[in-house]
Amino acid sequence: MSARVAVALVHHPVLARDGSETTSTVTNLDVHDIARSAKTYGVSDYFVVHPVPAQRALVQRIIGHWKTGSSGERIPTRGPALDLVRCLDSLDAVYAAMGGRASIRVWATAARPSESLLSFAAARESIARDDASVLLLFGTSWGLPRTVLDSANAILEPIGNAAEYNHLSVRAACAIALDRLLRSA
Amino acid sequence: MSARVAVALVHHPVLARDGSETTSTVTNLDVHDIARSAKTYGVSDYFVVHPVPAQRALVQRIIGHWKTGSSGERIPTRGPALDLVRCLDSLDAVYAAMGGRASIRVWATAARPSESLLSFAAARESIARDDASVLLLFGTSWGLPRTVLDSANAILEPIGNAAEYNHLSVRAACAIALDRLLRSA
Repeated sequence: MSARVAVALVHHPVLARDGSETTSTVTNLDVHDIARSAKTYGVSDYFVVHPVPAQRALVQRIIGHWKTGSSGERIPTRGPALDLVRCLDSLDAVYAAMGGRASIRVWATAARPSESLLSFAAARESIARDDASVLLLFGTSWGLPRTVLDSANAILEPIGNAAEYNHLSVRAACAIALDRLLRSA
Repeated sequence: MSARVAVALVHHPVLARDGSETTSTVTNLDVHDIARSAKTYGVSDYFVVHPVPAQRALVQRIIGHWKTGSSGERIPTRGPALDLVRCLDSLDAVYAAMGGRASIRVWATAARPSESLLSFAAARESIARDDASVLLLFGTSWGLPRTVLDSANAILEPIGNAAEYNHLSVRAACAIALDRLLRSA
């Protein structure tokens, strides 16, 4: 690929079940699984976005456990994946870390169909063709709110058949999206 | 698709870190994530294979929690996915539940390259063309042992680039495999 591709897992702002905006808690396996998928597909950074310092500290503890703790000795392949993880307090901080909002392409993901969708085929081609960095946004809980979707450059088409059952975990959705966008053949 | 496609998550026999055969413990999110991926892609059954009765009982408790417990009220979309889960004590029991070993095609998955690989493109075509049921085997821990790979009709090509970092979680690998084999377009 030509473009740098990063992933952000957003814990705030996200939707609650009733459609209001909320902050979700960190899920241990989100950190692991998405880091391993990111590393497998050559993603540059995996940003875990959380506004609460104690939750960011929890993520750092998880990482430390696998990088310098006993688990790192037991499964040494986990460390290189967790090296990609960066905990930041907001999407604005992620944009800044990527070189500024104006210089990157932000692609949001959503399980529900939306207007102005970017197909995976077009997105894959765009990554190969255009050097501007890409940031893929994934929402926890009930997904990314309208404000975040509207601030993105594009919304990727939903994975799966939206008319039928379509409730993938964010871990599965991220794995499938990376495979569709970045697999070598 | 034409063929019935089922998934089995194998906890025994699987490989331990040192290459010996072992039995792994059930991971809560394996039950959830793979059930949700299976339901999204129209998989007929998700077999959780474990020889230890207490571990099978744990899986049934997880399912009950989401189907009739308070969590089922909170997230009602989880129940229909967990309806696909069937706990059985061995692969032989899975084969019997699918109508007998001789009537099904068993495709094993492995992270490492192997001889006689079935490409995802050929497998996808075969599912569309041939009515014989397909059982996809996924190993927990360090993967499926040689005996299981040898007993399969085919081994699917590894996901990701085996020459580089390739340590997807079984949840991510299963999601990607189902997307490659069963996505509608």
